[in-house]
Amino acid sequence: MNLVLFEASDLTEDDKICLDDRRFEHIVKIHRAKEGDSLKVGRLNGLIGTAIIEEITDEDIKLSYELQDKPPRELPLTLVVALPRPPTFKKILEVATAMGVKDFYFINAKRVEQSFWQSPILREENYRKHLLFGLEQSVDTVLPKVNFCRGFKDFLSVAPALVADKKAFVAHPYTENGAPRALQEDIVLSIGPEGGFIDYEIEKLIDCGFEAVHMGARILRVEHAVTALLASIFKSY
Amino acid sequence: MNLVLFEASDLTEDDKICLDDRRFEHIVKIHRAKEGDSLKVGRLNGLIGTAIIEEITDEDIKLSYELQDKPPRELPLTLVVALPRPPTFKKILEVATAMGVKDFYFINAKRVEQSFWQSPILREENYRKHLLFGLEQSVDTVLPKVNFCRGFKDFLSVAPALVADKKAFVAHPYTENGAPRALQEDIVLSIGPEGGFIDYEIEKLIDCGFEAVHMGARILRVEHAVTALLASIFKSY
Repeated sequence: MNLVLFEASDLTEDDKICLDDRRFEHIVKIHRAKEGDSLKVGRLNGLIGTAIIEEITDEDIKLSYELQDKPPRELPLTLVVALPRPPTFKKILEVATAMGVKDFYFINAKRVEQSFWQSPILREENYRKHLLFGLEQSVDTVLPKVNFCRGFKDFLSVAPALVADKKAFVAHPYTENGAPRALQEDIVLSIGPEGGFIDYEIEKLIDCGFEAVHMGARILRVEHAVTALLASIFKSY
Repeated sequence: MNLVLFEASDLTEDDKICLDDRRFEHIVKIHRAKEGDSLKVGRLNGLIGTAIIEEITDEDIKLSYELQDKPPRELPLTLVVALPRPPTFKKILEVATAMGVKDFYFINAKRVEQSFWQSPILREENYRKHLLFGLEQSVDTVLPKVNFCRGFKDFLSVAPALVADKKAFVAHPYTENGAPRALQEDIVLSIGPEGGFIDYEIEKLIDCGFEAVHMGARILRVEHAVTALLASIFKSY
């Protein structure tokens, strides 16, 4: 936790931050912070600044704060991923959020195991904390948007608008084109399920404006493939 | 498991592969393979090829095999990492091995928590399986070498020979130099502990021939920082 994120609901009437949940535990047990210490804090979807610990009790912590810094630049990327198994879904949310992704689409595909769509992790109250972990890791405050397309065709119906005026790539093992390097423009990047998109899906994505690019000679776990692709495609992250 | 790795000790007298451990379980329970099915196999530090399942019993699986393909190219990188906490150590071994790293140095630094050096995971019989997981993931057979320098000065004494004729970089947040992109030459890359190398350590590494480069605006978990750096530094991985 490189940043303590707070929301309006964490503020007292006299505008102090009051925390009694995992953030309280983390500040006291992991940071071993004491009254008078200062911490980096950020308001969800707002500015970043410094807080001073005013009081620690057995049950909560109270901080005064001042905010002045903007959050870091977002990555100009829409990340489209065929829905992976729940543990991978969480890891992708965390690492891609930490890298600055603000727009996720999780979509269906032929090789997506349909039971993944039943997982409770797809409910916002369950996955939201993984977005927060990502923001806390990379000292950002802007909560990403997570969209789901439970049919591949649902995604095809939104894809043309998504791709308009952007470069769009679909990672595909069976192509000669290497992934682009060190770009600075707006990008839509689509990553298939284990085993890849089927030919029909690749064709439809190409029809929508996606260009098929390969991801390197080695098969990586999806969360590492995402990390590696974002790092190599963008000039800075 | 995209590759079933075997060793001389897994071979029967009539040159069949016989497996009775986690590989057996994985082939039967996860791949749901049956007699007659074929699998991709590789001999540790040797060639890659195809095996046919000859017999499955309750206790083991027997396969005939033929090998013809070379393992993929290694990444021309020596990865030097200040010893992280044990779970991160395992993750770095897995992902960096999957990306093709063949040479690891885990070193001491001022901000390395000294208890990490007591962890049983630093014994080869304990960490070896994480190297195998990495090879199985990316269909490689060549086991990396893992070296430990329990004093920072021990590393300084080997560093000049390590760095000779190579480009060497140390990831450091407090520098203007961006990390290099899309290189194809031999590289030594050094990554500090949580909180970074101290100034003295950075100076000593620079004396040895390392160039300080920063890793991007965002703080990532060490295993993701490694993945992102390798992906952006090398032309292909």
